Amino acid sequence: MNESVDGSLSPGAPPLEVVPLGGLGEFGLNMMAISCGDTTIVIDAGAMFPEADLPGVDLIIPDLEYLEARRGQLKALVLTHGHEDHIGAVPYLLPLLDGPIYGPPLALAFVQRKLDEHGLDPSHGVSPISPRDRLTIGPFELEFLRVTHSMPDCVAVAVRTPHGTLVHTGDFKVDQTPLDGEPFDLHRLAQLGADGVLALFGDSTNVDRRGFTGSELEVEDAFEEIFTSTDGKVVVAAFASSVYRLQILCELATAYDRRVAFVGRGMNETLQIAQRLGYLRVAAGTLIKDSDVSRFPAQDVVCLATGSQGEPNAALSRIAIDDHRYVKLTKGDRVVISARAIPGNEKAIGRVLNHVAKRGVEVITESSRHVHVSGHGSEEELKLVLSLARPRYFVPIHGEFRQLARHARIAELVTSGAAGRTTVLTPENGDILRFDGDGGRLVGKAPAGRVLIDGTHMGEIDDEVLRDRRHLAADGLVVPVVTINRQTGQVEGLPDVIARGFVTAAVPDDVLAEAARHIVTIIAACNVEERTDPGLMKERIRVELRKFLRKRTGRRPMVLPVVMEI
Amino acid sequence: MNESVDGSLSPGAPPLEVVPLGGLGEFGLNMMAISCGDTTIVIDAGAMFPEADLPGVDLIIPDLEYLEARRGQLKALVLTHGHEDHIGAVPYLLPLLDGPIYGPPLALAFVQRKLDEHGLDPSHGVSPISPRDRLTIGPFELEFLRVTHSMPDCVAVAVRTPHGTLVHTGDFKVDQTPLDGEPFDLHRLAQLGADGVLALFGDSTNVDRRGFTGSELEVEDAFEEIFTSTDGKVVVAAFASSVYRLQILCELATAYDRRVAFVGRGMNETLQIAQRLGYLRVAAGTLIKDSDVSRFPAQDVVCLATGSQGEPNAALSRIAIDDHRYVKLTKGDRVVISARAIPGNEKAIGRVLNHVAKRGVEVITESSRHVHVSGHGSEEELKLVLSLARPRYFVPIHGEFRQLARHARIAELVTSGAAGRTTVLTPENGDILRFDGDGGRLVGKAPAGRVLIDGTHMGEIDDEVLRDRRHLAADGLVVPVVTINRQTGQVEGLPDVIARGFVTAAVPDDVLAEAARHIVTIIAACNVEERTDPGLMKERIRVELRKFLRKRTGRRPMVLPVVMEI
Repeated sequence: MNESVDGSLSPGAPPLEVVPLGGLGEFGLNMMAISCGDTTIVIDAGAMFPEADLPGVDLIIPDLEYLEARRGQLKALVLTHGHEDHIGAVPYLLPLLDGPIYGPPLALAFVQRKLDEHGLDPSHGVSPISPRDRLTIGPFELEFLRVTHSMPDCVAVAVRTPHGTLVHTGDFKVDQTPLDGEPFDLHRLAQLGADGVLALFGDSTNVDRRGFTGSELEVEDAFEEIFTSTDGKVVVAAFASSVYRLQILCELATAYDRRVAFVGRGMNETLQIAQRLGYLRVAAGTLIKDSDVSRFPAQDVVCLATGSQGEPNAALSRIAIDDHRYVKLTKGDRVVISARAIPGNEKAIGRVLNHVAKRGVEVITESSRHVHVSGHGSEEELKLVLSLARPRYFVPIHGEFRQLARHARIAELVTSGAAGRTTVLTPENGDILRFDGDGGRLVGKAPAGRVLIDGTHMGEIDDEVLRDRRHLAADGLVVPVVTINRQTGQVEGLPDVIARGFVTAAVPDDVLAEAARHIVTIIAACNVEERTDPGLMKERIRVELRKFLRKRTGRRPMVLPVVMEI
Repeated sequence: MNESVDGSLSPGAPPLEVVPLGGLGEFGLNMMAISCGDTTIVIDAGAMFPEADLPGVDLIIPDLEYLEARRGQLKALVLTHGHEDHIGAVPYLLPLLDGPIYGPPLALAFVQRKLDEHGLDPSHGVSPISPRDRLTIGPFELEFLRVTHSMPDCVAVAVRTPHGTLVHTGDFKVDQTPLDGEPFDLHRLAQLGADGVLALFGDSTNVDRRGFTGSELEVEDAFEEIFTSTDGKVVVAAFASSVYRLQILCELATAYDRRVAFVGRGMNETLQIAQRLGYLRVAAGTLIKDSDVSRFPAQDVVCLATGSQGEPNAALSRIAIDDHRYVKLTKGDRVVISARAIPGNEKAIGRVLNHVAKRGVEVITESSRHVHVSGHGSEEELKLVLSLARPRYFVPIHGEFRQLARHARIAELVTSGAAGRTTVLTPENGDILRFDGDGGRLVGKAPAGRVLIDGTHMGEIDDEVLRDRRHLAADGLVVPVVTINRQTGQVEGLPDVIARGFVTAAVPDDVLAEAARHIVTIIAACNVEERTDPGLMKERIRVELRKFLRKRTGRRPMVLPVVMEI
């Protein structure tokens, strides 16, 4: 189909409005609404984990106000794949939906687990889709294209609208040798490009990396070498959602006669789901429980563990300080971080690796061996997608402002020689992009922002609350100041617990004194290695003190520990 | 000279004691004491900048207690090169010294500037050394070897002792094409190795990087392309001490008809010192003042700016939020980060680059172009030095625990095939390494640790104080809680200022209320871009509030701002 000069196929149709509600100017929170007439569809509903400097918060989701105003016309939620930054907000969006959740089977399985945890049931059902499937929703015809990424079963979405075709890439790289034999559907993308794409919305995550990202397969050589040359256990920390990585590691384990234990909640959830759906195939006899690790000779074991980002409560952190129930490190073992450090996590990861090294265990990271490949396309892959799609408008998505700006620049370079130059639009979250007979442009602002969620994070989400930052402040602030002797790991004196906006008539005065004593107990329960690691202690005190205060007072103040070593 | 089997040349001599006092288990604070009889020499006296989670501190230096106990026998301080992590503590060590400061001329010039700022005069003088110089200090004969690094005029130190020869590498990489034609003295190292090295102390910084680091020259291609293809100004942020980098940039600027402005205090200090001593040669007519930048067409200018780590008060941060007195960014300019991110600084750098991108200015970093080369040797370079020195004992230095552990492992691999296998010793800071007729071993513990310095950081160091962490706590804690509207940048309500251990009889009660009002004034003085950047606001409030409280009360509480956006 050839578009008319004004880019509009049906000049009489109501305008098309696209509103990015998250993921522009930030990593995470990916969500976009597409509306025409009284039909709105939402692509992805992602969450984000809070930075260390946002105390008292466990999860962040996009502000849903814009979608709330469209209750009754939200005819579909379309998921591109099963990563948290694309599905983490589904439980919160679900009550607003007036149609099914569409997505690839693996993504839907991850969503289903999430909904089960929340005790939610999608009243309009979930509906698995396959690549090249087509689907009509009101004025839209959706089509799904296979893309490659760090997990199986990812798609891009093409949305045929009265004003032309939109293409949303989801997250992607161009893996030319995908582990499951499902290549990026370059052919269909080329065809769409030939037919005419009104607007391309493209993943910008790795736009500042030169060249091509490379295939998931590339890590095989390094791991083969590690599996064969390690005298003891190999403990690999990776993102639990990196199913391809887990598949490669399981196959190598089988090939080199090692048993595999999945360690940590996230890893075991992935194992169950991906194995059940056939995305992860493990040879019979290879899997063992983490509780059985000690029953096998160390050189016959691989542990696939959570905690690649140095998260204090994940499996690797516990193992590193010799505080894991089943998995102990001994000389001759090796620990591999098979993931990149998400910016801001470098110091936490470094601390965990120092603990590992102190056990006499060798540490292997991306910089010393080729044990990780990114799931996002680098500059040349982004150019390839732009070249094939040759859209009339291009909108960079998924990235902080500098990545979006760079992607915009690259799009202009790629299309400057083409027949029809691409117009780049760089909206922020909440900007309303309108496409109609006059072409595409930014026309206004919809409500957008972040909602903070205060859950328990470590277990069931039975009593989480949604709060905006103002409410967060209203519940008060508690600052425990703890001094720990660096040599002995002993607490010096009783901790100070300072509070503001927290102690009221409803909160007995002695709660703070009690809290101080509780902190001493918390610290006493930790081993010396943990006590002398201010990073771990801060997180431990934060989590435990919040639990304590909630139980004792029913309130949820921010807890901001200050840990000083002397 | 061939050593006897027990490694000792003079079995009757007093034992040799080596005590690392900083830089083992951490990056920075590099310092090591070497004693024999009543003579002690100190190699390097480095500082460290505090992490964001150590509020109220501007500089960290090693605990000097071990050296204080040796007053009267500290016959020399020997500096390997002029980086802060090797010379930053010199002003604090100086009063303890009973001998001169030896070092390469460039390092001594940087030290002299530091001493001038502190109003100090080295009573035993400073004494410049050159490679291959020899120097006798008590029972020690010192010899200096040229090594290559990211700045000119770096040396390793060989210390001939009654028990054998120690070699301390300083910081190094093996740059095979050094810009100044001064290659790493592999010949002399080989000769020392052939003659017999008792112990090698080797830089471990980059031990977890594969391969060879590469020459400083390697950045030329990328910058040539940038200088020729940029329509506007090129602003390059780099470490001010990276004299080679500055030299390359000045030469390219001359070649491509751009003027060079050094922007920021650190850059201008380096310019003055390095130019005066002939380490930096800039063609006549190339240099301009930063105040003249606006008088030249943008495409004729390169700015070399401080702030490559996202430091809130450095030139690049001010430029990024359009708050620099002279340097303004406009469309067509480009900003290049020609440095690596020190772990922990990634988010701050990212924030600065987002501000830059918002000005329509392209951002170039190490990941998108080859604009930075590390100054530290990678795995293969470390192996080369081990192979040449083939020491009887090897001690990894300069790194966190995991780097030291990895270096130890590599040393064992390298020397396992050699005639005499190397024994690896992995002391921590304060461990006493003794070498005598029985060989080398850890024999005990000397006092070691960190001292925190609370200066003004931003200007003159006229009233800084040394404090340990206990005193830090004793001066109290002030937590200002500020809520800023994300859209408007306005402060919502009056900030809360919580204090603990600070308001006493000596501190009038209304100081906190006054402080709250002062914060409002501080924030009002910032532009909207700065106000809506919690990272920048936190630092600004911290610095300004500390000044305010010190002036009003004479006390120096920790200030720990909480900035919430709504």
